[in-house]
Amino acid sequence: MASIFTRIINGEIPSYRVAEDDNHYAFLDINPLNAGHTLVVPKKEVDYIFDLSTEEYTALQLFARRVAAAVQKSVPCRRIATAVIGLEVPHAHIHLVPIDTEADMDFRKPKKEISPERMAEIAATIASNFK
Amino acid sequence: MASIFTRIINGEIPSYRVAEDDNHYAFLDINPLNAGHTLVVPKKEVDYIFDLSTEEYTALQLFARRVAAAVQKSVPCRRIATAVIGLEVPHAHIHLVPIDTEADMDFRKPKKEISPERMAEIAATIASNFK
Repeated sequence: MASIFTRIINGEIPSYRVAEDDNHYAFLDINPLNAGHTLVVPKKEVDYIFDLSTEEYTALQLFARRVAAAVQKSVPCRRIATAVIGLEVPHAHIHLVPIDTEADMDFRKPKKEISPERMAEIAATIASNFK
Repeated sequence: MASIFTRIINGEIPSYRVAEDDNHYAFLDINPLNAGHTLVVPKKEVDYIFDLSTEEYTALQLFARRVAAAVQKSVPCRRIATAVIGLEVPHAHIHLVPIDTEADMDFRKPKKEISPERMAEIAATIASNFK
């Protein structure tokens, strides 16, 4: 069965898209640690990020870096932290989290509640800053 | 003033080294989330990882991936998670954390206490598995 991320990429499940190219897709995490929390995934459905080929892995990291630059321009934060945990969904994904303090990276804290209107606005801003 | 990581790389401050090449250095975190928790740093002292050049950034990510493979062979774990937070030390570094559950990635939990003898043993095992 296709992963939830593949279904998002295919448009079967809606998402707040922020960036896309032939091989990658980036969208807002709907349970964000902070406003602008973004997930970057390869379109190829691979469970473990280190199982990507060298070329795929490099392309994914470089795409994530471009998305991070766009997120940083779009929401107030000290910097964009990254994390790959990979136990929740069997489809490799990089978390990009705008942070001000280390505590912002605690994945077990209660998630931010952000209205759909605001999520759409944030996604559009990031998309407009994506180069 | 040189960052603590530069002083570690230069050997002024001792570390449990696990891997090194001309441009990168990897060593055990002395306040580990789990046994085998490793820090990967570029020898070039750059604060924010996304300020590295494309070439430097790519090389760092590929070096980290090789170290992650060695860590995974060396300690029992489901996989190697990664994180870049970057607010503690102004010298870019990638955390490689052997994890079994998402909770293992909570950077605010009490750190594991591991004896110097065991740390040296873990470092030697990772170093022997580094390719």
